[in-house]
Amino acid sequence: MSTQYVYRFGNGATEGRKEMRTLLGGKGANLAEMSAIGLPVPPGFTVTTEACQYYSTHDHQWPEGLESQVHSGLDHIENALGRKLGDPHRPLLVSVRSGAAQSMPGMMDTVLNLGLNDEVVEGLARESGNTRFAYDAYRRFIDMFGGVVMGVHHDHFEKALHDMKVSKGFTDDLQLDADDLKQLVQEFKAIYEDKTGHPFPTDPQLQLRHSINAVFGSWDSERALKYRRINQITGLLGTAVNVQAMVYGNMGSTSGTGVCFTRNPSTGERELYGEYLTNAQGEDVVAGIRTPKPIAEMAAEFPESHTELVQLTSELERHYRNMQDIEFTIQDGKLYILQTRNGKRTGRAALRCAVDFVHEGLTDEVAAVRDLVEPGHLDQLLHPGFKDESAYKDKVLASGLPASPGAAVGQVVFTADEAESWALDGKKIILVRIETSPEDVGGMDAAQGILTSRGGMTSHAAVVARGWGKPCVAGCGDVAIDYKTKTFHANGTTVSEGDWISINGSSGEVILGQQELVAAQLSDDFATFMEWTDQVRSIGVRTNADTPEDAAKAVEFGAEGIGLCRTEHMFFEGDRIQAVREMILAPTEEARTAALAKLLPYQREDFRGIFKAMDGKPVTIRLLDPPLHEFLPHDETGKRDMAEHMAVDVSEVKKKVAELAEFNPMLGHRGCRLGVTYPEITAMQTRAILEAALRCQTEGVEAIPEIMVPLIGTVEEFVNQKQIIHDTAEQVFAETGNRVEYLVGTMIEVPRAALTADEVAKEADFFSFGTNDLTQMCFGYSRDDAGKFLPAYVEHRILENDPFQILDQRGVGQLVRMGTERGRGSNANLKVGICGEHGGDPSSVAFCYRLGMDYVSCSPFRVPIARLAAAQAHLAAQ
Amino acid sequence: MSTQYVYRFGNGATEGRKEMRTLLGGKGANLAEMSAIGLPVPPGFTVTTEACQYYSTHDHQWPEGLESQVHSGLDHIENALGRKLGDPHRPLLVSVRSGAAQSMPGMMDTVLNLGLNDEVVEGLARESGNTRFAYDAYRRFIDMFGGVVMGVHHDHFEKALHDMKVSKGFTDDLQLDADDLKQLVQEFKAIYEDKTGHPFPTDPQLQLRHSINAVFGSWDSERALKYRRINQITGLLGTAVNVQAMVYGNMGSTSGTGVCFTRNPSTGERELYGEYLTNAQGEDVVAGIRTPKPIAEMAAEFPESHTELVQLTSELERHYRNMQDIEFTIQDGKLYILQTRNGKRTGRAALRCAVDFVHEGLTDEVAAVRDLVEPGHLDQLLHPGFKDESAYKDKVLASGLPASPGAAVGQVVFTADEAESWALDGKKIILVRIETSPEDVGGMDAAQGILTSRGGMTSHAAVVARGWGKPCVAGCGDVAIDYKTKTFHANGTTVSEGDWISINGSSGEVILGQQELVAAQLSDDFATFMEWTDQVRSIGVRTNADTPEDAAKAVEFGAEGIGLCRTEHMFFEGDRIQAVREMILAPTEEARTAALAKLLPYQREDFRGIFKAMDGKPVTIRLLDPPLHEFLPHDETGKRDMAEHMAVDVSEVKKKVAELAEFNPMLGHRGCRLGVTYPEITAMQTRAILEAALRCQTEGVEAIPEIMVPLIGTVEEFVNQKQIIHDTAEQVFAETGNRVEYLVGTMIEVPRAALTADEVAKEADFFSFGTNDLTQMCFGYSRDDAGKFLPAYVEHRILENDPFQILDQRGVGQLVRMGTERGRGSNANLKVGICGEHGGDPSSVAFCYRLGMDYVSCSPFRVPIARLAAAQAHLAAQ
Repeated sequence: MSTQYVYRFGNGATEGRKEMRTLLGGKGANLAEMSAIGLPVPPGFTVTTEACQYYSTHDHQWPEGLESQVHSGLDHIENALGRKLGDPHRPLLVSVRSGAAQSMPGMMDTVLNLGLNDEVVEGLARESGNTRFAYDAYRRFIDMFGGVVMGVHHDHFEKALHDMKVSKGFTDDLQLDADDLKQLVQEFKAIYEDKTGHPFPTDPQLQLRHSINAVFGSWDSERALKYRRINQITGLLGTAVNVQAMVYGNMGSTSGTGVCFTRNPSTGERELYGEYLTNAQGEDVVAGIRTPKPIAEMAAEFPESHTELVQLTSELERHYRNMQDIEFTIQDGKLYILQTRNGKRTGRAALRCAVDFVHEGLTDEVAAVRDLVEPGHLDQLLHPGFKDESAYKDKVLASGLPASPGAAVGQVVFTADEAESWALDGKKIILVRIETSPEDVGGMDAAQGILTSRGGMTSHAAVVARGWGKPCVAGCGDVAIDYKTKTFHANGTTVSEGDWISINGSSGEVILGQQELVAAQLSDDFATFMEWTDQVRSIGVRTNADTPEDAAKAVEFGAEGIGLCRTEHMFFEGDRIQAVREMILAPTEEARTAALAKLLPYQREDFRGIFKAMDGKPVTIRLLDPPLHEFLPHDETGKRDMAEHMAVDVSEVKKKVAELAEFNPMLGHRGCRLGVTYPEITAMQTRAILEAALRCQTEGVEAIPEIMVPLIGTVEEFVNQKQIIHDTAEQVFAETGNRVEYLVGTMIEVPRAALTADEVAKEADFFSFGTNDLTQMCFGYSRDDAGKFLPAYVEHRILENDPFQILDQRGVGQLVRMGTERGRGSNANLKVGICGEHGGDPSSVAFCYRLGMDYVSCSPFRVPIARLAAAQAHLAAQ
Repeated sequence: MSTQYVYRFGNGATEGRKEMRTLLGGKGANLAEMSAIGLPVPPGFTVTTEACQYYSTHDHQWPEGLESQVHSGLDHIENALGRKLGDPHRPLLVSVRSGAAQSMPGMMDTVLNLGLNDEVVEGLARESGNTRFAYDAYRRFIDMFGGVVMGVHHDHFEKALHDMKVSKGFTDDLQLDADDLKQLVQEFKAIYEDKTGHPFPTDPQLQLRHSINAVFGSWDSERALKYRRINQITGLLGTAVNVQAMVYGNMGSTSGTGVCFTRNPSTGERELYGEYLTNAQGEDVVAGIRTPKPIAEMAAEFPESHTELVQLTSELERHYRNMQDIEFTIQDGKLYILQTRNGKRTGRAALRCAVDFVHEGLTDEVAAVRDLVEPGHLDQLLHPGFKDESAYKDKVLASGLPASPGAAVGQVVFTADEAESWALDGKKIILVRIETSPEDVGGMDAAQGILTSRGGMTSHAAVVARGWGKPCVAGCGDVAIDYKTKTFHANGTTVSEGDWISINGSSGEVILGQQELVAAQLSDDFATFMEWTDQVRSIGVRTNADTPEDAAKAVEFGAEGIGLCRTEHMFFEGDRIQAVREMILAPTEEARTAALAKLLPYQREDFRGIFKAMDGKPVTIRLLDPPLHEFLPHDETGKRDMAEHMAVDVSEVKKKVAELAEFNPMLGHRGCRLGVTYPEITAMQTRAILEAALRCQTEGVEAIPEIMVPLIGTVEEFVNQKQIIHDTAEQVFAETGNRVEYLVGTMIEVPRAALTADEVAKEADFFSFGTNDLTQMCFGYSRDDAGKFLPAYVEHRILENDPFQILDQRGVGQLVRMGTERGRGSNANLKVGICGEHGGDPSSVAFCYRLGMDYVSCSPFRVPIARLAAAQAHLAAQ
């Protein structure tokens, strides 16, 4: 017996199985699966990838037996439906689709309505009672066949269509009637002949053979080859070809079409949810020309089909262990399921489904965690949103980066000071800035949301806003801000101080006026589900938090420690900035130490508050990181104010500002470089941390401080700082007569630190990967400037993602892996975590899990997302 | 027979050999070597490292046999000299020194004059006829023994000395007479007893035993352990101990001491060159209290010793195959050689010696290349210097970084425009700027030398100046420049426009007034020697050159191609900047293309000139690299001028400047990111390169263009740019009907490119490591800002060297290795080179050689240095 190249499906004669992806491709295996579980799918057959392989290695010949097998496959379809390909009386039309074992753009996609010719189209018109439909299908078929099978450019057909509309004074395709379309079919055929040198093939068998060959041939197209090369896809035989009967819902009043979900996709309630149209095609439902009817009405109109559909939904949920989104068509009273797939749902619905599925015994907790909720679902629940996102689409002023999710409404102000004073007056405000700096944090805190015209997903505004769970749209280039006139312009509209705007931090939209908000929704389902994730999860989840409030919030969201407590924000609050500036202006070490002494009590209290909030959970505190010039005013007024306040000449302030200015602050005098040049800063901060910890001890609060040295590039820097920390600690312990356990570790955020991690780890208790800076330095991208080229990079597919949002595993990930492996190699007890923005991104969390890190750390509002992502990563590895 | 722990040397009884470094340590092996070749070294013995190992692993016990062997070693010394340790009549004094197989700071160093006590000192006084000398030796011995052997802090002794001087109203140690020193010896002994609890040991045998134990013990001192751990020195047994007779040149008129070179160290001429003092100690020569006599006078005063010395010099040169620097002492008419080592010499002398040694048959060419000239020697020859560096030491105004070697004298100007116009008037000028930018290149070119108050060794000023071989002092923080008043202040002195200054780019000094210069000295010896290096060398040496003049200069210096031709400098010359600015302001791609078309003929001519200069040698041309804002004016006047010139409103210019401003330009919109966002720039430059190459072809000049895409971080960027280059090339070839071979490769300067080199290399013809940027990104240091902390880093020994000067092999070197290995792994034909500043640094050249690179590339004036370094690296690997 010759090789089986054709596998039938549908009508109770399914030969394939879902496991046969290699042979049947993904689509073919899926169709086999649907048929096998008894779904009434339109019958068809799959030509195997082996046949494709033979074709491409045998000079475009079909293997022996394929021709007769295709014929008998076609017989299977014809018998199942009582129709025949090319028969004008009971016409059968088929679709031809490619489908490899892996989804792969670049190959021929789809030919629909195959089987039409000048006779068959009349039969279709008769049967459907719709001549316009039949000729519309015909002209589409010629276009599609000409384009994807014969390489005739779609523009030629499109131009003919366009010219006809112009000549008739029409603006819309729908204005063309049946006669117009008949004429268009003639023109399309002429175009086809002109471009290919052959008349359009009227023999459906020939149409089919050409189409199958076109799918085979597309496997070796340049685009497909390039795609496989770049994505390193090897070992596949070829693509399969799926030939399937077309079924139509517009064959009269006993036909119809619809879509439905097995549960309500907004709320997750258990109900058949969807809509249908009688005597219509699927695209009519989408086009919105006719108003579809609720699915419940099918019970009266198509009682048999409705009963069958309801029965199927239960079976489908039990089989797929997930809520399903089903496309169906009724042709001549017979129900066909065209597609079933896991249904998209809101976050609320996802949680409800997950919990209900478990309670209904349809799945278990582990599978629910693995399959039923996506990390992104949780994001929706944690932030307020707009009640109706479709309501404001005509009021969108501009779009920026969705820098911090959630929706906010407020009056526009342009300075941090105004933000604070307006907020004190009880007003809700949106702070609009070209960019923000640490000086603006007060105003940012007072605002409902933040809008900036510059800066990327990890700009100051974005990072701070995400940390607080406050909506932010960043890098909105279309917004031109004029601080002088207190206005901004966006695509022709001028918005002045005090005007109301709304921002959608999840989509990046800036909307004129006040949109209605709905609050964050944390249901019981949330708590139940998150418990399940924790039972599954094996990697720790910490949070990045700088204040007791953030810390408390994060603990509520399930954080198991603080992975990054930045201390620089503490330098801005209230009067402290004065002491900081005194320190910066100090001409001697003594004066500097004196100024630092003023900061000590503040910092000690800050840390005490954080230790209390985290009672017994570890707190990783990073020593001062930003360059000192960030603490100085940069405008004329600010400099004068500072001079006055400090009773020095303004020239002195200016001189210091000029002296500290840097060409590339990102690569400048910051991080541990400050600690090395000004050891007294390291000493003060260490003292504050340990005195706070000791005070907590006496108050019955367990404090677990982990002191983190930033921006290490050499082990020598770390040793230098560790010595200062240990010396200070011993001094504090001697003074107080008490001791507290503490760790000293470092951020790994400079490529050199990762490369020499074996040396650094010998001295360090822990590593925490600062993947923001590591990404900046590994790529050589300044995150504040990359907005100028990153969009072009994503557009040209040079980058698949913004590497500041999703960890670049191919490049930056190598440094993280190297750092972890080399570090652990020389210090088996090394604790390893990640505290960059990526700590809250699901794919990055999975990467960290696979590397065997001890924990990931992210902003409080991403803690639940990280918990779920970590659990799913664990399950994926089983 | 028991183990031999003691090896004698001197007086014809040498037991060690120079190969026994592991057992005898470096110093011991060297003493054995000197004795073995018949030099009259003071006799002594070496206690082996095995003895030390026994001591440190056996609870500070000596191994069996050591005691008697030390005794017989002492006998050997005593017999050789006819003196005895502890004998007041013919006293023997010895020195005790440590010496491991590897030089190692942190261990006990030296005890001199061991053997003195209250009786012996009197004998020494008698014999030398110099009581003051004897007691001075005694008090120094107590101090040294107390300090290094017993750990009594030197400060205690120093205080007693200080107090005595104060009480006597003296300011100088030399004012103390013999009686004072006698009293001091008593006080020192009292201090010793007070601090150690024991009287000072008067038994010389005990002194010796204590000293040997102290050397043994210092092997396990904390400092030594730490040093070995950090430097990963393992596998050594311990330290050896060298005990050697002291000889004195101040024993009367038949004694003396001196130093001499076997050749003139300034010129290299063959003559015994040196000086001596009769009846004096070595330190008297150094102290400069008495004027030493020329060595020739020894012939009359010490005829026998002189004859012996002259004979020895020939033998020494033949043995060591190098010019020697000899320390000798004559005691009682007997000549002792204390030390001989390779003599330090000027560059001129080094070349002369090398050539003469070969011609005299003392060595061969290969050994001359390996041993007789250091890369730094060549540097001296290639640049002008000051006639007398000691003459101006009191006129040094400030010191900065020695950014580009050589000396320059000129009148101070503060702007590039003034530099150009003063130079046109025939004046010699020094351009003084806070920092320079590409706009200043005209003025820099017109200047004799450049002084900047900011920026590091790889700042713009430094890089450009080195490329031209023009002296430059950079980052001179003590120079405070005031552009308004056209003055600068430095340590209290004010220098105004027009004042004369001199700068020493080899030392970093800035000197008031006009110092006398001597020109660069390229002798025939230079040409001869460089030919020898090329015979030995196996790695190619190219140059970084941007103009036909530089290219020609480099070829003269032996460059075998251009490794880096930067094209951005070409954008500034003459009127071109106008076209560049037009391009930048262009609102559409069409307008941009039109502006670029104006640049095309200029660039084509530039490349044609360079191809001609390099006739038949490969030329690597880097596409535009800097961010566009570097081409815009940044001051108010400049912006207004530009607006006027381009007939646009000044607000438009300002808007563009603001739009292009970047937080971190180093990590911003530059390199291939420009080429991706503005593909027409890549296309124009490719066209200019290939049209120039084709034109050269018709002119009989062979052009070998290698087009280099800068700042690649992903293979996708490279593929994007390569496609534009290939498409443009095919267009040019079609237009002209001719073809030319060309390569397309990339700079590897972003860490991610090195990490993913396997991917990039599949697409690239060559890699060139841009180690300047790679160092910046690997360390996270902005070279323009690092001046704020790098000095502290070098001071605290966090960094051994400035990584911008000497490639950091431990960190950055890993990326270079990874890039090379992974690149070659996926593309065996990949050409690999380096074009960063490190391409001219000897240790970095050696590193590149060991990695198997095809070539190094450096500025023209470093080409000879790289040739020599490459030859030496090759020899070192044999």
